[in-house]
Amino acid sequence: MASGAEAEGPTTPKSPAGANHRRAQIIESASRLFDQVGYYPTSMDDIAQAVGIAKPSLYHYFRSKDAILLGIHQEFIALLLSRQAERGKPSDGAVAPQLYEVMLDILNLMHTHRGHVRVFFEHHRELPPEVHDLANQGRDTYFNSVVQLFEVGVDKRQIHGNPRLSAMALFGMCNWAYQWYDPEGPLSPEDVAQSFHDILLNGIAVAASPE
Amino acid sequence: MASGAEAEGPTTPKSPAGANHRRAQIIESASRLFDQVGYYPTSMDDIAQAVGIAKPSLYHYFRSKDAILLGIHQEFIALLLSRQAERGKPSDGAVAPQLYEVMLDILNLMHTHRGHVRVFFEHHRELPPEVHDLANQGRDTYFNSVVQLFEVGVDKRQIHGNPRLSAMALFGMCNWAYQWYDPEGPLSPEDVAQSFHDILLNGIAVAASPE
Repeated sequence: MASGAEAEGPTTPKSPAGANHRRAQIIESASRLFDQVGYYPTSMDDIAQAVGIAKPSLYHYFRSKDAILLGIHQEFIALLLSRQAERGKPSDGAVAPQLYEVMLDILNLMHTHRGHVRVFFEHHRELPPEVHDLANQGRDTYFNSVVQLFEVGVDKRQIHGNPRLSAMALFGMCNWAYQWYDPEGPLSPEDVAQSFHDILLNGIAVAASPE
Repeated sequence: MASGAEAEGPTTPKSPAGANHRRAQIIESASRLFDQVGYYPTSMDDIAQAVGIAKPSLYHYFRSKDAILLGIHQEFIALLLSRQAERGKPSDGAVAPQLYEVMLDILNLMHTHRGHVRVFFEHHRELPPEVHDLANQGRDTYFNSVVQLFEVGVDKRQIHGNPRLSAMALFGMCNWAYQWYDPEGPLSPEDVAQSFHDILLNGIAVAASPE
């Protein structure tokens, strides 16, 4: 998850790569604890112990539990934004396959970052305002890039409907999976993305209404 | 929200209608506090004070904060189940308008019970197992009744697709609204239900795929 980091011992890393790796370790351990034990009952002591570092060392990376929660969020939003950037401009090519990619990206998170996603969705509102605003910036950027995809599709007459409401439908279907999707179950993220994409594009009615 | 209850003072009600009313008052006040202040920071003292009753009186109705959270859930699930029961069997008539009704019921909750819904979705996992199981019973009953609606529609060849995944798509679209829907905003629950129902049934593609 950290970029260019090798395995590190519990001492304070000297290199930037080592520091990134340590941040990623903390985020990983904290996500697991928040997911299993709950956000409120987990203390900074618990997190330091799970990572295997001293508490001052933990505070060197994150000055509070809220900062770790923000870090958790920034990690998965950065992942979604980088996937979006890799795809290039929404005006290139057909919109439908790009919507599939967006849906798959989110459903893949339920596989790789389910604890992160859940913890963030369920606790972001209780973050201090300045941390909350920082988290919202990333979310808004991502949300708007998806709305833009719907807007381009409507402009090109490939799809119809209100772009914001269509985006809310897409996010609803995919984000809600954090409540029910079982990474150990029979459905892959691709299976779910395929089904939901088909619903979003074509609906489930056997005889489509004429208008 | 309470059945057949008149306005009551802060003394312990004598009649069953009065007791129902008092329970509803507690649930209402607690939902508001949980929503505004957070579930964890809110104490039984805070709730008693908000309702305007003594703490022993509060414990007479609910033996813990968890029990109030369960009460909050049972209230909105009961509402959804009663709406479902009013509609009769899913085999009666076309499935599409029944799906609209289900979606509208959930979106109406975002208007009338948004705090209840949010608090429950975000904290149910941390409930003690026995309380959690009780809450799940109600949710399972409701979820299965909606899956059954999709099954009937598939049997009658009115709709296609996997009934469970279609139900997950419906719940995702509608439940997620608790994260973004603004009851004071320009969209009514009917507007959102109509748009989402149209997506669910007909999709947004301008040229529907031929299969």
